[in-house]
Amino acid sequence: MKLGTLKHTVDHKPVAGDFAIIEAPVPACPENGVLVRTVHLSLDPYVGSRLRGRHMGEAAPEPMKGAIPGAIVGQVIESRVPSLKEGDWVQSMEGGWQEVCALTAEHVRKIDPSVAPLAAHAGVLGMPGLTAWSGITQLAKVGAGDTVLVDAAAGPVGGTVGQIARIKGADRVVGIAGGPEKCALVTDTYGFDACIDYKAEGWKDRLAEALPDGLSVFFENVSADMAMLALTHARIYARGVLCGLVDAYHTETQSQHPLNAGLIIGKRAQLSGLVVYDFYPRWDEYIAEAAPWITSGQLKFAEDRAAGLEEAPALFERLMNGKNKGKAVVTVAPESV
Amino acid sequence: MKLGTLKHTVDHKPVAGDFAIIEAPVPACPENGVLVRTVHLSLDPYVGSRLRGRHMGEAAPEPMKGAIPGAIVGQVIESRVPSLKEGDWVQSMEGGWQEVCALTAEHVRKIDPSVAPLAAHAGVLGMPGLTAWSGITQLAKVGAGDTVLVDAAAGPVGGTVGQIARIKGADRVVGIAGGPEKCALVTDTYGFDACIDYKAEGWKDRLAEALPDGLSVFFENVSADMAMLALTHARIYARGVLCGLVDAYHTETQSQHPLNAGLIIGKRAQLSGLVVYDFYPRWDEYIAEAAPWITSGQLKFAEDRAAGLEEAPALFERLMNGKNKGKAVVTVAPESV
Repeated sequence: MKLGTLKHTVDHKPVAGDFAIIEAPVPACPENGVLVRTVHLSLDPYVGSRLRGRHMGEAAPEPMKGAIPGAIVGQVIESRVPSLKEGDWVQSMEGGWQEVCALTAEHVRKIDPSVAPLAAHAGVLGMPGLTAWSGITQLAKVGAGDTVLVDAAAGPVGGTVGQIARIKGADRVVGIAGGPEKCALVTDTYGFDACIDYKAEGWKDRLAEALPDGLSVFFENVSADMAMLALTHARIYARGVLCGLVDAYHTETQSQHPLNAGLIIGKRAQLSGLVVYDFYPRWDEYIAEAAPWITSGQLKFAEDRAAGLEEAPALFERLMNGKNKGKAVVTVAPESV
Repeated sequence: MKLGTLKHTVDHKPVAGDFAIIEAPVPACPENGVLVRTVHLSLDPYVGSRLRGRHMGEAAPEPMKGAIPGAIVGQVIESRVPSLKEGDWVQSMEGGWQEVCALTAEHVRKIDPSVAPLAAHAGVLGMPGLTAWSGITQLAKVGAGDTVLVDAAAGPVGGTVGQIARIKGADRVVGIAGGPEKCALVTDTYGFDACIDYKAEGWKDRLAEALPDGLSVFFENVSADMAMLALTHARIYARGVLCGLVDAYHTETQSQHPLNAGLIIGKRAQLSGLVVYDFYPRWDEYIAEAAPWITSGQLKFAEDRAAGLEEAPALFERLMNGKNKGKAVVTVAPESV
């Protein structure tokens, strides 16, 4: 089978040439788990950080041997546990860049293939969607009267943040994204009220204009500086979710991500750190709530799809440079065999 | 009557020589308010900041004319509103350094002189106590299982924070204060489990030892750096109340008070900015809850008392340098006339 690995250790923002697709033996089915044929592979920014050993203390894969980490959606082809049987559809954060994954049962979540397109379980119903739901419904508790600002709004977290905020009753949803094409996705597909292109001149003035009554909630995906910019537009008692600091994933020096405590006090702001791992036990609850939104058309998503593991390195490089258009998903094998 | 004012504008940490006690005419009773004879005058750190025009956008008093701002406890001597009558005891944040205060009714809160010593309404039942209660019960929502850390723990805010935390069920309460005398007050009078002297060598190791299972709540009175030190000892999901940044009240350059967003996320911390003004409408509720704690001996307080307005400048200078021992209160006139 094919397996995607690092050619060498990396200490830079990964590029396509850092990866190798090699032949590896099909693993044996673990005693307390399953073998899964990988169908959809999710590419996510945190993996870029993890390949450099910078993510939550987790180790980078061994070059020319270990699979690149990545969430997968796939189908059980062999099982040694009673809870899972051949043919079941599953999602796992522990799959990785490989055509067949050996997974212990605790790392596998069974999914219902009828509730939504299977690839959605890599994005809007996957970890990015769960992240958005956790921040909006469990931490910021968005409801009627809220004005919500989110950056990286064209991405699968940011785009879902705004849409769930709207579903939960927010009055106004504003995004920040890079370039007119992404901004169009945010307003035209995701239905945000406005999206500010941070690459355009005068964008900070545009942001102020888009928030005439300030914001009551911000969801931070990019940096401490952006969080502080959001806070300058905050009404008092605003809630902020600190989720990602992707701007610093590949900086040469580790940032202190400075937030201004004086501004937080002055605004009586409430800031919450979000790590989506904590909400994995509530994944099924999220899907039960969100799948009908997809069916009804209230929750939209965009995908940047590649076909075949060989295409993963190039798509990953695009992701690292923000050039993907929607959730980066590699369809490793056809859904039906 | 006597009135305390600035001799000149100040752009340094105020010293006794910056103040003048002058003779001023007794003001007239406002149409919509009362005249109050000042009995107890509260001296508070925020006033030092305000005298430099640095507090919440509020103006400094006019030199040789306007009274130094300060909360007072006093007795109505003339009233033009039906809600207040001669002889009523009142508290006001708008009193100031003067023997008689002219106050509009909206700035006056009637107090019951029987629930606690009158001077307590300047400290433990006054703004410092309300600050502590708001942060512990309304923001951090301290209860059983919590370990609480607070700095400036010998002061009226910090000391009350720890005691209310204990009353609300906290398992362990740790303070930080400057010098053995203050630390003894914190442990022996306020009953904290431990108090770390930040002026002693190796104090950061002592702090770690005092928090063997980490903290679940911290209440920050001093600086962003201290908040980050607290966060390094935080369990995940810790709650932090950002209340005061007194270390920067008198720095030459305005600080950015940097908090590390990465650490906040990693700890899944929840930080809340606290401005006590917001809780003024709940003052009577606080007193109703806290006065019985004073009677029962669960809530202790210490005072550094001076007698006569002439003594206010020297006590204020001691306060600015952290040399006060307990709540700084000037008893301007006897309680009974």
